[in-house]
Amino acid sequence: MKKVEHIGIAVKDFAISIPLFENLLNVPCYKQETVESENVNTAFFKLGETKIELLQSTNSDGVIAKFIEKKGEGIHHLAFDTDNILAEVERLKNAGFTLLNETPKEGADNKLVCFLHPKSTNGVLIELCQEKK
Amino acid sequence: MKKVEHIGIAVKDFAISIPLFENLLNVPCYKQETVESENVNTAFFKLGETKIELLQSTNSDGVIAKFIEKKGEGIHHLAFDTDNILAEVERLKNAGFTLLNETPKEGADNKLVCFLHPKSTNGVLIELCQEKK
Repeated sequence: MKKVEHIGIAVKDFAISIPLFENLLNVPCYKQETVESENVNTAFFKLGETKIELLQSTNSDGVIAKFIEKKGEGIHHLAFDTDNILAEVERLKNAGFTLLNETPKEGADNKLVCFLHPKSTNGVLIELCQEKK
Repeated sequence: MKKVEHIGIAVKDFAISIPLFENLLNVPCYKQETVESENVNTAFFKLGETKIELLQSTNSDGVIAKFIEKKGEGIHHLAFDTDNILAEVERLKNAGFTLLNETPKEGADNKLVCFLHPKSTNGVLIELCQEKK
């Protein structure tokens, strides 16, 4: 793990939350992107070497909609940057962590991503990222 | 806001969670510290410019014990570094955010800290930090 790549925050409504986080962080939202496969809209803010990623569900069945239904708006996941996501998956499997997907999938922001099951990580949903070549 | 100073994670038992996060992050815990006024033990890990701060309650009445009772283990707060915490408190008050404490108090890791009410920040407990001189 090299650094905290981003912190994902589940929100209901970008029309409210994008200006809210622009005010809070005092930086503009620099990018919005839809990840169709995950039914999610994303909005990014940059602070130092880390991004804040707001997540809004594109439909009522999406993983973010279900998260908000269960827990309310708030921090959804924590993402770490890796140089070699496959090596990191192998290292973490060998250390006893449970992967939600061992084969990297396409994430937002030009990334390959794998998730760890929060039951194996003290309740924290962890994402591993690697920039696509 | 300059950068993500740390991410606070509420855990039940350091004896389990410190080795777990050492394995997960692949870096050692470099410091443990008790903040008596908050009834909390803290354990720190460093990744790039950001720290991961594990939080364990020192008693069953503490804020972290209550958080875990209600929500389970997991991410508790997100802390941002500031050059001038008083100016940042003033800016955020004027922007309509609700402060839990307007007067900075002593935090872990040689910091002055203020918290924002999560009702004004999309459910995310936000901490502002300034390194003490």
